[in-house]
Amino acid sequence: MSQIYLYDTTLRDGTQSEDISFLVADKVRIAQLLDELGIHYIEGGWPGSNPKDIAFFKEIRKVELKQAKIAAFGSTRRARTTPAKDTNIRTLIQAEPDTITIFGKTWDFHVREALRISLEENLELIYDSLAYLKEHVDEVVYDAEHFFDGYKANPEYAIKTLEAAERAGADCIVLCDTNGGTLPFEIGRIIDQVRKQIRTPLGIHAHNDSECAVANSLVAVEHGIVHVQGTINGFGERCGNANLCSIAPALNLKMDRPCMSEEQLRNLRIVSRTVYELANLVPNKHQPYVGNSAFAHKGGVHVSAIQRHPETYEHIRPEKVGNITRVLVSDLSGKSNILAKAEEFNINLDSKDPVTQEILENIKDLENQGFQFEGAEASFELLMRRALGTMRHFFSVLGFRVIDYRGHGDARPLSEATVRVKVGGRIEHTAAEGQGPVNALDNAMRKALESFYPQLKDMRLFDYKVRVLPTGKGTASVTRVLIESGDRLARWGTVGVSDNIIDASYQALVDAYQYKLLQHQERQNRQD
Amino acid sequence: MSQIYLYDTTLRDGTQSEDISFLVADKVRIAQLLDELGIHYIEGGWPGSNPKDIAFFKEIRKVELKQAKIAAFGSTRRARTTPAKDTNIRTLIQAEPDTITIFGKTWDFHVREALRISLEENLELIYDSLAYLKEHVDEVVYDAEHFFDGYKANPEYAIKTLEAAERAGADCIVLCDTNGGTLPFEIGRIIDQVRKQIRTPLGIHAHNDSECAVANSLVAVEHGIVHVQGTINGFGERCGNANLCSIAPALNLKMDRPCMSEEQLRNLRIVSRTVYELANLVPNKHQPYVGNSAFAHKGGVHVSAIQRHPETYEHIRPEKVGNITRVLVSDLSGKSNILAKAEEFNINLDSKDPVTQEILENIKDLENQGFQFEGAEASFELLMRRALGTMRHFFSVLGFRVIDYRGHGDARPLSEATVRVKVGGRIEHTAAEGQGPVNALDNAMRKALESFYPQLKDMRLFDYKVRVLPTGKGTASVTRVLIESGDRLARWGTVGVSDNIIDASYQALVDAYQYKLLQHQERQNRQD
Repeated sequence: MSQIYLYDTTLRDGTQSEDISFLVADKVRIAQLLDELGIHYIEGGWPGSNPKDIAFFKEIRKVELKQAKIAAFGSTRRARTTPAKDTNIRTLIQAEPDTITIFGKTWDFHVREALRISLEENLELIYDSLAYLKEHVDEVVYDAEHFFDGYKANPEYAIKTLEAAERAGADCIVLCDTNGGTLPFEIGRIIDQVRKQIRTPLGIHAHNDSECAVANSLVAVEHGIVHVQGTINGFGERCGNANLCSIAPALNLKMDRPCMSEEQLRNLRIVSRTVYELANLVPNKHQPYVGNSAFAHKGGVHVSAIQRHPETYEHIRPEKVGNITRVLVSDLSGKSNILAKAEEFNINLDSKDPVTQEILENIKDLENQGFQFEGAEASFELLMRRALGTMRHFFSVLGFRVIDYRGHGDARPLSEATVRVKVGGRIEHTAAEGQGPVNALDNAMRKALESFYPQLKDMRLFDYKVRVLPTGKGTASVTRVLIESGDRLARWGTVGVSDNIIDASYQALVDAYQYKLLQHQERQNRQD
Repeated sequence: MSQIYLYDTTLRDGTQSEDISFLVADKVRIAQLLDELGIHYIEGGWPGSNPKDIAFFKEIRKVELKQAKIAAFGSTRRARTTPAKDTNIRTLIQAEPDTITIFGKTWDFHVREALRISLEENLELIYDSLAYLKEHVDEVVYDAEHFFDGYKANPEYAIKTLEAAERAGADCIVLCDTNGGTLPFEIGRIIDQVRKQIRTPLGIHAHNDSECAVANSLVAVEHGIVHVQGTINGFGERCGNANLCSIAPALNLKMDRPCMSEEQLRNLRIVSRTVYELANLVPNKHQPYVGNSAFAHKGGVHVSAIQRHPETYEHIRPEKVGNITRVLVSDLSGKSNILAKAEEFNINLDSKDPVTQEILENIKDLENQGFQFEGAEASFELLMRRALGTMRHFFSVLGFRVIDYRGHGDARPLSEATVRVKVGGRIEHTAAEGQGPVNALDNAMRKALESFYPQLKDMRLFDYKVRVLPTGKGTASVTRVLIESGDRLARWGTVGVSDNIIDASYQALVDAYQYKLLQHQERQNRQD
């Protein structure tokens, strides 16, 4: 079986996504990560389309890559010119990539309506451009845009465009599902037809508009394709591109077509998350293979089965992609969940220890009140430590007052909080403003605590979620607040529940500070 | 070709998702939406597993559904008992659903390791349970858990379990990819084998762990399956279930296997978003078919091509699923939405009226700020009436102050609000306490207004939802508050957005009172 080559276009097609824009430095960092991951080709950008992409090709030459080839992307020459005179083609060569990829039109409808040239002229564009590029660069890839739609509309012409690329010496011909509308059973049938007429190695470029991009890519491999284009996390225009984070593990672990080493595959989750981080996007919890919930188990029956035989409810071993099995604490949880959690937190807990039963009852009681520890694992750890009596008392809040005031003609209310905090024997009484009552309270409490615990300064709140648990009483319902905090090293979630939103927020904030202080203390203990 | 039946399990498997928990009232509302959408079966829950699900089956019987059948889910009987004595089986019958779905073990490994019974005994469990249920309910569906993994491990035994179900009279046998590990080309091959031996209509239940759940379901249909299980938005344990919001349009628009009417399909996006809202989750912008970015075009070339020939860059017409093409230039569909809404509210509005353009721009501006009028149609109607100048000025709020105070040893903070309200020439200055700042503000404003407008006394707040719109700034993020209010005759939703939760709540409360006063006035006008 032929080796499968992964071609990543996160830096080009990925940035077509509505919410993604990378700095040149980010792009270089991502390219290095992809290289370490074992990706074979990294499409860095379209140098003919913007100066940022030109800068990337300059910068990436200064970096030593282990194995990945850098590809530059562009289009076939314009009509009524020669490749040598075409600015876009020249910019591609000037970028000095290892590989040049150009796209051309396959669909007769597009040739007539978008290019507005004759079908014959389009074949010349494809042939000319590739033949010229082939003289200037080692490797040339041809992206057949709208291939599947074009094939369905006019198969003879679609094949003619591929033949032009083949004659010009393209090293790989990529069948693109540009609009993402093709379904998996169509992919296989069409590729089988193409392979009867084209001998050049074939590739696939799938979009996710039908939620089939990964499946289509894998079906394509099953039908003899050897080059797979996609992006990290499936980033891309509209509904995204084929997700390499789901394609790579399927090839390695399920199809016996390894595309990277086992060690590289174990970095998949880290790469996925770092790319989210650099794109400033919240990772998709439910993402296959790499998401936080991908191996999370809720039900008690599942949990005890998982612990005996992971394969009963897990399609792969999560460690293989750098992920872990997570046992969720919820109203379905039994003792085995609690013990599994304790182990995760490095807390010694025995199933026969009466404290275990106490914790279990405490949790059930809290859950009846509306608490939820999924996403608030820091609060859960604090609860266990308090039950075990191993939690240091860092501070007490003696009282607070929050005022929201709006006068006639004011654009919005002003919020101000005052707090009194006691640490050891000392009392700090201070005040702060904020955007809304919770922000004001957070600001005032930190201000008071930071004089005792300066380590709180590098803690930030990342997310604040409010869920009103309706009891049919409108604004008098029970409120659950989930807060996600973090510092340079970790992120953690805390929870508070009350019929008063300020009180619920206050509980979650206090847990967040205490968890930060606990982590800091433990790091210091380890260093001693 | 046989009719395809859609079987929704949002209310059962969907709630296995880490972050989803519905109240009984939410579940009933979702069931009604699914029924209107044309879903054939609605799996309401597992009555044997928790009291909340029992309550759902009680409540749903009070509601008139158009066509959907309600299904209850459970397992085969336990070993060493009879179906008649098995609590789980009895609870299923007591729930009085239209259809009962039970799952049983297919994979020999699970029979031995999880059930710890003999392979033969498991066949008896399956046969007994289905045969007994078949005597008590019109329709019985059998979910063959881990079917594909079981078939790969021991095809003879896997088929034997299906044969037991067939002999017992199951109306449909569902092949489950419980761990979500199966790839699309395996699905087709295995189903072809099964169909040689089983004559009962077959179904598919796919999970998304390999990012292939939608593709696997569509491939299954292509191979003769007639019953497709899934959830709205692909909600579900780990990486989710097969997403019916992507399956339904593929069946209707691409595979010529319509599963709902064209009109029902046009409600797909609304249903998707309402279910996100009820689950208190942020909709996935990039979701195929229904996401905000699904038909969003960034590139200038795309945009002009799209306007001349949408099929050049769109795999389907977005209107068919209730979505719209988003381009940066004049958005004509926006205007038609507004006109449609005006008609709904009995407001005279003409497309050439400059006020229509003003409303459109106002809405775009508000939506950029984070407003959302789905679920807040009362605020939308007030906005239109204000733009048209047909809204009576009922009152002004001159100012308010809300204080949350917590002293040392207090169980929770006390909240107190003072407000000054002006109606006509009179000013009312009053104060009230509440459970939390918003409840206090609500109480104080009503107290002030009721002296002028006693009709506000029969208005209640039914639901209060807070969504923090992530800006990465923690408690300083933008907050959107949705309030549902009602009286004996109607219910209405209002919205407020601010970086201050008190301010956002205040806006939504003021709209709620004004809408109540407007309705009251209109009723009186009609009576005159």
